[in-house]
This record gives sequence, C-alpha cells and structure tokens, in this order.
Amino acid sequence: MTQANDNFLKLQRNYLFRDIADKVKAFQTSHPEAHIISLGIGDVTQPLAPAVIQAMHKAVEEMGHEETFRGYGPEQGYEFLRQAIVDGDFRPRGIEMDIDEVFVSDGAKSDTGNIGDILSSDSTVGVTDPIYPVYIDSNVMSGRAGALTPQGLWNRITYMPCTAANDFTPEIPDHKVDIIYLCYPNNPTGTVISRQQLQQWVDYARRWGSLIMYDAAYEAYIQDPEIPHSIYEIEGAKECAIEFHSYSKTAGFTGTRCGYTIVPKALKAYSDGQPVSLNQLWTRRQSTKYNGTSYITQRGAAATYTPEGRAQIQETIQYYMTNARLMLQTLAKAGFTTYGGHDAPYIWLKTPDGVGSWQFFETLLHQAHLVSTPGVGFGPSGEGYIRLTAFGKRQDCEEAMKRIIRL
Amino acid sequence: MTQANDNFLKLQRNYLFRDIADKVKAFQTSHPEAHIISLGIGDVTQPLAPAVIQAMHKAVEEMGHEETFRGYGPEQGYEFLRQAIVDGDFRPRGIEMDIDEVFVSDGAKSDTGNIGDILSSDSTVGVTDPIYPVYIDSNVMSGRAGALTPQGLWNRITYMPCTAANDFTPEIPDHKVDIIYLCYPNNPTGTVISRQQLQQWVDYARRWGSLIMYDAAYEAYIQDPEIPHSIYEIEGAKECAIEFHSYSKTAGFTGTRCGYTIVPKALKAYSDGQPVSLNQLWTRRQSTKYNGTSYITQRGAAATYTPEGRAQIQETIQYYMTNARLMLQTLAKAGFTTYGGHDAPYIWLKTPDGVGSWQFFETLLHQAHLVSTPGVGFGPSGEGYIRLTAFGKRQDCEEAMKRIIRL
Repeated sequence: MTQANDNFLKLQRNYLFRDIADKVKAFQTSHPEAHIISLGIGDVTQPLAPAVIQAMHKAVEEMGHEETFRGYGPEQGYEFLRQAIVDGDFRPRGIEMDIDEVFVSDGAKSDTGNIGDILSSDSTVGVTDPIYPVYIDSNVMSGRAGALTPQGLWNRITYMPCTAANDFTPEIPDHKVDIIYLCYPNNPTGTVISRQQLQQWVDYARRWGSLIMYDAAYEAYIQDPEIPHSIYEIEGAKECAIEFHSYSKTAGFTGTRCGYTIVPKALKAYSDGQPVSLNQLWTRRQSTKYNGTSYITQRGAAATYTPEGRAQIQETIQYYMTNARLMLQTLAKAGFTTYGGHDAPYIWLKTPDGVGSWQFFETLLHQAHLVSTPGVGFGPSGEGYIRLTAFGKRQDCEEAMKRIIRL
Repeated sequence: MTQANDNFLKLQRNYLFRDIADKVKAFQTSHPEAHIISLGIGDVTQPLAPAVIQAMHKAVEEMGHEETFRGYGPEQGYEFLRQAIVDGDFRPRGIEMDIDEVFVSDGAKSDTGNIGDILSSDSTVGVTDPIYPVYIDSNVMSGRAGALTPQGLWNRITYMPCTAANDFTPEIPDHKVDIIYLCYPNNPTGTVISRQQLQQWVDYARRWGSLIMYDAAYEAYIQDPEIPHSIYEIEGAKECAIEFHSYSKTAGFTGTRCGYTIVPKALKAYSDGQPVSLNQLWTRRQSTKYNGTSYITQRGAAATYTPEGRAQIQETIQYYMTNARLMLQTLAKAGFTTYGGHDAPYIWLKTPDGVGSWQFFETLLHQAHLVSTPGVGFGPSGEGYIRLTAFGKRQDCEEAMKRIIRL
C-alpha cells in the first residue's frame, strides 16, 4: 500500500475562502433577490492594460507562424523580461541585480509554496499573525509546522502577533528562527513597514543566519515615498532574503498568471556546515520541476515596463487606491476604526463592540449584502477584525459604502 | 544558519540537455561555417494550429474589457476545458470520468515533479531504464532515491532495464515497489506497450497496492489502433494509476504551457492504515501551491477539441510522423538498427559496432553536424543507443538523412 504524505492530513479541513464562498452561496440561495457585493477575496476587476493586450496579441500571432514560433523557453524566463525587471523594478531604486538572480514564474503563490523544496524540512518557521494562509499550509505539508495545538496554533511555528496594540509591528524574536515570512505592504492588514524596521529584520537575519521570505506582491500600491518597495533597498538583504513579486495585483494578472522571484547569488544556506548557493538550488529545482512561463504571458508582463504600459497600470492602481480612499472616508464617518488602505489595497477594519470576526462577517452579509473576509481566518491575532479589499468596481464600492452608512 | 535540503546536493552536477548544449556550442564556435541540425532535444518546430491561435486572440481580447475580463480561475482549471478533456480524450475510448478527476496545469513536467508532494517520502520508486531524467531527479530531491552507488544508480530505486534483448519490455518486479513510473509511447525509446502488458502492470499494482505514474504525453502519436492511449482503458486502473497528459507534443504547446493530470477518485493511498483519497490530497496541494493555468492558454487548449482544431493538430502530428517514416527508411537503408518511430516521435538507434552513446553523439556532431541525444543520458541501459526526434522541419530532416547516408 502506497503511503500518503501524512502531513497533509494535519491540514485543517476547510479553506478560508471556500468557507466564505459556501456561506455566500447559501445566503444567495435563500435570498435570491439580494445584490451581493464582494469586498472579500483579493481579486481584481479592471481589465488588462491596452499595452499588455497588444503585446499578447502580437505574441499569439508569432506562435502561429513557423518563422516566429517559440517552443520551450528558458525555465528561468526569457531574457527580455528578466532584463526589463532588473531595469524597471530594481535599478531605479539603486539596487543592482544580475538577471540570473531573477526567476520568472506563473505567480507568487507557486513560488512561495515551492520554495521550501530547497530547504531542510527540519527548518523552523516564523510568521506574522495574521498571515496569508498559504505560507503556513505549505509548511504544514512539508512537516515544518509540527502539530496543531488545541489553541489552533502549530507547535513548531513562531507566531509574531500584529495588532493595534503594537501598531501592527511584529516583535523581532529573541531566538533563532530559520525561515521568517514577511509580507509588505501587508496582506491582510494593509499596513507597511518602514526602512528602519526592515533594517532591524535584516540585522536579525544576518545575526542568526535566518532566511527572510519577503513577499512584495503589493509594492506597486505604495504611495508614501519613504516606504521601501523591496527588501534589497536595505543593506545586507541580499545575504539573507528571497523576494517574491507578482503581476497579479500590479497589472491585473490574476487570471493571466505571471510573477517572479529574486534569489540573490550572495544568498547561502548550509549543508554539513558548508555554504550552498540557494540560487543554484532554485535553478535546479525549477529546471527539474518547471518548464517556464508561457511566452505569450511573458510578453504581456514585459509590456508593463514600457512607458505606455507603465502609465496604464499606474492608472488602474490609482483607480483602486481611489476606491480605498473612498472606503476609508466612509468608514471613518460611520465611526469604524480602520488600519491600512493608504499604501495597500487592503483595509483592516476593527469590528465594533469587540464582536468576533465571523459574527461581523455574518452581520455584513445578512444586513448589507456585503462580503468581507473574517480576520481570524488569517490567524488568531486577526480575531476582532475583517479585511476589506479595494479591488472592486467603483460603482460597487460606492454602493457598498452607502450600505455601510445605512447599517 | 538555515539548512539546505541536503538531497539536492546528491544530484549529479550536470543536466543531460545542458551538457549537450555546451558541446554543440563549443563545436559551433570552432566551426562557425557548420550548419548544425538538431535531432536532439524533443522540442517541436511547427506553429500552433489556426484554431488555437484564433481562440487565444479571442481570449486576449476578452481580458482587455471589463465585461469579459477574467481574474482568478479555478485552481483545477476551467470547466470548459475539463469537460472538453473528458468528452474528447476519454469518453470516445469508453472511459467515464468525472471532471473533478481532471486537473489542468502548466504542463506534465510540473505535475510529474510535484505529484510526489502528496506521497510519503519513504515510498520506494521503480523506473524503467532508460527513462526521462526528471522522474528520478524529482525523487532524489525528496529523498526517495537514497544514495548514488559507484555504478551511478540510486540505491533505493528499482531499475527495470528496457533493451533490445527484452524487446524493450520492462520485467515486472518480483517485490513490492510503491511508486512505478511508466511512460508510453516511451520517451526515449519510442516503443509502445500492448494492452496485455499494461494489464499485467495494473494487476501487479493492485496486488501489491502500488501506484503507477503513467505518462501519456505522446499518446496522440499512436498510429496502431490496438495500442492503448490511456491506462484507464485497462480495467482496474482507476484504483492504481495517475495519468499525465500534455499539449506540448500533441498541439505544439512547449512554449505555451498546458497539460493535465488525472487523479481518479477511486485512488487511495494510506495513512496509519486508513485509506486517504489522493484526489483530495492533490486538490489541496494544487489549491495551496498553484493558482491555475492562464485563461488564455486554457482557451487555446480547449480549441484543440473542436472539429477544426482536431483536424489541424492531426495534420501536424502526421507531418512529424512522416519525418519519422523518412528517418526510419533512411536509417534502415544505411544499415542502422532502430526501434520506435512508428507510434512515437522518437527513434532509438543502436550505435554501430557497439560504440558508446557519447562517442557516437560526437561522431554525428563532428562528421555530420547533427545533434542527437546520447541514450546513456537516460540511464545505464541506454548505453549503446542514441535518441533521434522527428520534431524537425521537413527540409532539415531530409538534409539530416542525406548526411547520414553520406556518413
């Protein structure tokens, strides 16, 4: 009898967004007349930029002719895209990068999930709490999380609470944690990290030899010029951090699928006390288990770095950030306490009168026909909060805010 | 210090196709005038079918308008494609399949590499020899392969030699092996498996509780109506086999990236003696570490099931198979012994006078400016063979055969 990976059986049965979908479906079935507006799952609503569309049409056309057809591409991504990334996302911030440190993929979810392949399954893990559930679940699958305690925490994971009480600033551990997950601008709280705070994390990682998994999927939403967009803006970060980027929220690629991951050549892990290049290990992992991202998609992603493409995706980002401003204003007027939403497309709303996340989720669904995401779904420190996203269409966003005021 | 996954360090340093590329590059540099023709790596050369191009243009256009834009799709793939797969690839062969048993992905390499995530890392592995190197390398990475012996074999892997002596029919093991990799039509030998032989494998797997990983990436090349296209044509296979499919060779998607994997609901592994649904485990794995295949790509793949799409991809397959016939005829005329090439795009050529694979590779490169793939690169039983592919352009294929005759 073939044995399953037992770690999978430790996973809690249901998945946050599926639970929400089930509850929404049940409500819609019993209230077919209700016009439900979702401020829940973080999916975008605006179409791809014209420059991206044009580039992809051209790429599709190339695939239809023998002279311009493309077969297998480089597993790591085409040079035209990797060079555009280095020149567009890093050089302007004073970060020098070799294109061999850039790995194009089908999205940050794949990379953050698969990156653990190259590290020891004995490594310890630290996460901010609340957190995007995939970071934890992928570590449960690989056995790094240990066992689930009655409190719903994993006994081998170090949780770093982020709440209003500590201004959503995770306390740096006083002990060694091998792998630290940080996501800024943060999903779900919408808060950001300052240069000084990020420097402290880099210092911590270098002191203990820890590895930071830095998820920068929302960096394009940063409005404040003082806030770092990349961990590599911090000195020493190339020796201790892997960084994940995505075109999903930057350029509306949630259904088109493209992202990239930076694994600096200076980054080492250890085996038998000897340093090992994680760049080489990830190259080998991707060459063996991945066959590159669609040529058409890569052409689309590259178009976001052209002057027109850049202007068009900025316009869409500002569209969503206008939603966020509108929401923040209305929510403040309605007497709610909120966090985030200034440099991120997420608003972290404190539930009134200390009611539970799921209870407030139900209130919003039943009384205002609004879908939110219960904060506790992102971890215990999310209890008493809900997450709202600014990715809706303007009219839905406006209608949602009217309902909030009425409520 | 963060520890690396030590298993990665056991991998042999170089990768077959990279070695070949290096040798070809070196030769081209020292012989800039040589017109090198590749019959080596298994990449296609013919453009995508017009029906596929048309469907992808339409999908790109949809992504550019708010009303038709698509964000996150289902991780398992859109229903329109999964239904087309069930109706197009299985029902006509008398195989009933639920669409929830179909998992669309970015290609068979990702799926064959990642599938091990859901199984115990203690599982034993059996492979035919020669074999596509990824099956072994991905098991080395997960620790299932054990240690490398001085003979270049992994001590926890059961090798099943396939040579002319046994008519390329692997002997069924006399002991239990947890996971068996089979690929038919075979890469690299181009040979096929009969219904009776496949039934024996299914019987073996059911007797011992083994799991068969069946790679059907080349099934569209089968010409002989007696040869099975899917392991599910065999009774009982749904209880013991996962099957991998790819549009790479079927429809020229090597650069467009799409494939699918069948994980039947009847398929169980075990944990603490209790049966566990592998369909559920793979659903969870994909929901956590994958975010679905590009909508545009899925529309392209679905177009291969329309009457026009079907006719067009058949035409391309026949183009390659005509190459194969041409090659087989010429090679026979030149006195070579060959295998495969009748129901597969690969020809397995016995080197003359028992010279080594790499030596004959060098001879072909230096004296005929032809690139082949040394059989030994696919495993010890490939020594004394080279693999030739029929994926070239017709004129290159004809020119290559002229050079062989001259040689």
